[in-house]
Amino acid sequence: MAYNLLKGKKGIIFGALNEMSIAWKVAERAHEEGAEFVLTNTPVSLRFGELQKLADKTNSLIITADATNEKDLENLITETIAHFGGKIDFILHSVAMSLNVRKDRLYDNLNYDYLKKTLDISAISFHKVLQIARKADAIREWGSVVALSYVAAQRSLYGYNDMADAKAMLESIARSFGYIYGRDKKIRINTISQSPTLTTAGSGVKGIDGLLDFTNRMSPLGNATADECADYCVTLFSDLTRKVTMQNLFHDGGFSNMGMSRRAMTMYNKSLKDCQENSEE
Amino acid sequence: MAYNLLKGKKGIIFGALNEMSIAWKVAERAHEEGAEFVLTNTPVSLRFGELQKLADKTNSLIITADATNEKDLENLITETIAHFGGKIDFILHSVAMSLNVRKDRLYDNLNYDYLKKTLDISAISFHKVLQIARKADAIREWGSVVALSYVAAQRSLYGYNDMADAKAMLESIARSFGYIYGRDKKIRINTISQSPTLTTAGSGVKGIDGLLDFTNRMSPLGNATADECADYCVTLFSDLTRKVTMQNLFHDGGFSNMGMSRRAMTMYNKSLKDCQENSEE
Amino acid sequence: MAYNLLKGKKGIIFGALNEMSIAWKVAERAHEEGAEFVLTNTPVSLRFGELQKLADKTNSLIITADATNEKDLENLITETIAHFGGKIDFILHSVAMSLNVRKDRLYDNLNYDYLKKTLDISAISFHKVLQIARKADAIREWGSVVALSYVAAQRSLYGYNDMADAKAMLESIARSFGYIYGRDKKIRINTISQSPTLTTAGSGVKGIDGLLDFTNRMSPLGNATADECADYCVTLFSDLTRKVTMQNLFHDGGFSNMGMSRRAMTMYNKSLKDCQENSEE
Amino acid sequence: MAYNLLKGKKGIIFGALNEMSIAWKVAERAHEEGAEFVLTNTPVSLRFGELQKLADKTNSLIITADATNEKDLENLITETIAHFGGKIDFILHSVAMSLNVRKDRLYDNLNYDYLKKTLDISAISFHKVLQIARKADAIREWGSVVALSYVAAQRSLYGYNDMADAKAMLESIARSFGYIYGRDKKIRINTISQSPTLTTAGSGVKGIDGLLDFTNRMSPLGNATADECADYCVTLFSDLTRKVTMQNLFHDGGFSNMGMSRRAMTMYNKSLKDCQENSEE
Repeated sequence: MAYNLLKGKKGIIFGALNEMSIAWKVAERAHEEGAEFVLTNTPVSLRFGELQKLADKTNSLIITADATNEKDLENLITETIAHFGGKIDFILHSVAMSLNVRKDRLYDNLNYDYLKKTLDISAISFHKVLQIARKADAIREWGSVVALSYVAAQRSLYGYNDMADAKAMLESIARSFGYIYGRDKKIRINTISQSPTLTTAGSGVKGIDGLLDFTNRMSPLGNATADECADYCVTLFSDLTRKVTMQNLFHDGGFSNMGMSRRAMTMYNKSLKDCQENSEE
Repeated sequence: MAYNLLKGKKGIIFGALNEMSIAWKVAERAHEEGAEFVLTNTPVSLRFGELQKLADKTNSLIITADATNEKDLENLITETIAHFGGKIDFILHSVAMSLNVRKDRLYDNLNYDYLKKTLDISAISFHKVLQIARKADAIREWGSVVALSYVAAQRSLYGYNDMADAKAMLESIARSFGYIYGRDKKIRINTISQSPTLTTAGSGVKGIDGLLDFTNRMSPLGNATADECADYCVTLFSDLTRKVTMQNLFHDGGFSNMGMSRRAMTMYNKSLKDCQENSEE
Repeated sequence: MAYNLLKGKKGIIFGALNEMSIAWKVAERAHEEGAEFVLTNTPVSLRFGELQKLADKTNSLIITADATNEKDLENLITETIAHFGGKIDFILHSVAMSLNVRKDRLYDNLNYDYLKKTLDISAISFHKVLQIARKADAIREWGSVVALSYVAAQRSLYGYNDMADAKAMLESIARSFGYIYGRDKKIRINTISQSPTLTTAGSGVKGIDGLLDFTNRMSPLGNATADECADYCVTLFSDLTRKVTMQNLFHDGGFSNMGMSRRAMTMYNKSLKDCQENSEE
Repeated sequence: MAYNLLKGKKGIIFGALNEMSIAWKVAERAHEEGAEFVLTNTPVSLRFGELQKLADKTNSLIITADATNEKDLENLITETIAHFGGKIDFILHSVAMSLNVRKDRLYDNLNYDYLKKTLDISAISFHKVLQIARKADAIREWGSVVALSYVAAQRSLYGYNDMADAKAMLESIARSFGYIYGRDKKIRINTISQSPTLTTAGSGVKGIDGLLDFTNRMSPLGNATADECADYCVTLFSDLTRKVTMQNLFHDGGFSNMGMSRRAMTMYNKSLKDCQENSEE
């Protein structure tokens, strides 16, 4: 169902790769709600993903850019403004990657060049997007910027590795730049802390199945899906949330504020009992 | 501008007194967005307020109820379901009062009967509404409940008195009941932590002018108004935020995540310098 | 091992019942560290507990008081000051009880008289102790007050019931009164959020065994014991933590900042796999 | 006054420059409490600072190391263990620097090479210290690691710039590594979030005087001094806080949980009134 919530609004969406991507779902929903936008991703993502399909479906322009490359971002902003004949209203940042995770370097055995890449891609890129947009005065007053985060920024999760530190920094950038961009240009900047989601990136995380089952049983409303995340993004890009800024907004079925649920405890206790029965102590 | 975000939805709105009330603004906006609702407040509020005007404007039924009285609430729920011929989709709880504040009892000189009244009216009433709705199975699946809170639940503010403790408890009830109601019936429960607002209640707080100026200069987007709060409420009652639950959501122009802004510091420094110049030390 | 950290300090310790009580352990450790104190509990606790044994061991005076009763508290403060011939330096508040928990009333079926009792005993009593001490000017400058809390104040735990709301309010009182008492008299007020602990009260909570195993596996350092909590209390009563105030301090082996540990996940996955194998879907 | 709290404990203290340094005060207090330690800082700091004076006073060895250089850190750890003939018990990390701050690059005009330096020096160095210590198995069971942080990690402060993001990352590293090091070796890792302090580094921050006055009036106990911070550190290195880990501990006179104090509001209102009187609007 569509409400015309983003009618007339223009934007840039980073990070759509294929139909599993949250950014892909946001693009679809933003399109349904009347927005126009530029899709952007790295050249390599374009080759392996299916971004053109999304561009066709949403009648969007693709401009390739490496989000860690300032020249690319400057070009992206310039071309986007030229394309729309004016400023934009929203940006989605859904960009993250850790070579330490990919190459199975555990957190107490980090490769520091990889760590710097993790930060560059997953956190500093967000600052670059904002700084370059700010310098070009590319976002209209009361515009809205959203980046995707994860509860690992607050709480340690086995296997999430250096991405936890990157997400903590990402959320800090949202606050730090949210203050300045808000004060100067009325732009709001928030992060959405989304349930673990089976995207192409997410499905690579070891033990993701067990984690998804656990968070699902812990969350009173169950894990939030990528589609639901897209719905939530739409409200944050709309004019109905103008005074929400510098926040990290949990979209996770309640997981973040759960200590222990009945459903998760029941599952946990099952094996606990088994272990105790099988143990001679 | 309206989007039909609440088309077909039914609800109950607690706490509208007059045009300054946040609940009043929520009612107006919910009406514009296609919702139908029952308005409720205490008998005494009806006499002194202008609720009938709002009921006429939004084509709503008024059912009086003291939110601390279980019988009244049971009647409210029963009559509302009868009125709509079925379950409801949303509830707004905007109810708070402190006799300690009104009667100038400072926080280190509380009257404990007043404190119990503060809790009963400002926090426990929220539990009662939820428990009675739950027992009557009055809210449809994926319904949404919102209560209004304030940053005093997290941070101490001179003069906010026992209302701070009541708000802390209110937010806890949103979490505690949000877990149970979410698990059992997919109902979400959140609080909005709103900027200080010049409602009839708010304008009674001593020193509110200085505080409003300070929070306005501290918040990059300025204080959030009652109208903006109503917009935000609409998104939380809509189907676009279904997996947001048990959260306290700051709607405050960024105040909650500010440590010190340039604008507030400039104002502060002015008098600091004056004091230092006028002092002989 | 003892360090004389509390040499010359006087205090009041609420809530020791028997050797399992955290307050009991705090009394033992405070005594070892050179403190003198008054032990207090309700008349009924004295009958069923073994407080006299502790008083003998620590060479302490017992003064009975119902912590919800202002007259009792006034008497306690007056007699304590008389006993020591002067002001005190520290107070431990370890008082909590929920009739809803005891009588198996679930959180969506609360008895509101019981809820008021829960708040009165577990939260408001803390305000009363502080207000009465403040009026009597009973605490020396740079004194320290600690109350015991639990992570349920932030995160919902199956079965913790209305005690969660009471703890949220307790922590709010620590902030609210911490501001005033700090500003006026340099008294600091904090709460310790302790691991679930097998005290007489704790062991009554249903499903406590499973929860203890889960939190133990989630916490990198394991659950904190009552003895360790006593050690931590001693540091907070000492002169080495004078500028720590209005804080809720987690003493829980790291649990509060864990999202998922390897050990807990391994246990959880065991039964998850069993269930999946045994299921035909 | 000394208590022998650290008797027999060995450690490494990073970041003492001169008598204003927090690390300097920690070294003095740790020495008084019976600890032995190695002092470390960069070669350039040694030339401009007065570390030898501190080493003489506390009978300590100095080992120079650039905390961003893995080889230097490996050497530091190896030599320290050789020096003490065994493992150490505690580490203090008090290392931070931002070229963007020094060179007056505002947060919306960051130099990204400087930003990487900020992160490398102020956050990643902490991970390197931990990883290298972990690989060398350099810290004894129940050892304690503390890094110094600032409330800018949570809340935006005018002028604090990219250091805010570095501190957010630093606190995340404490959590992430705290989980692993705790689970494997019972080592605890925490950060202290200290009041703004007039160290050599701090006094370079623009507008620090106004900020210090504001935070002092906001904090019920006033700003925490470097000496008081050293006292607090001692408790965290002692055996009395063994189950405190992965925490960010505010040592700030209550500032972090204040929304508005009477004293700060009075000062603020003074200039507010002046402005209103002098304005013709």
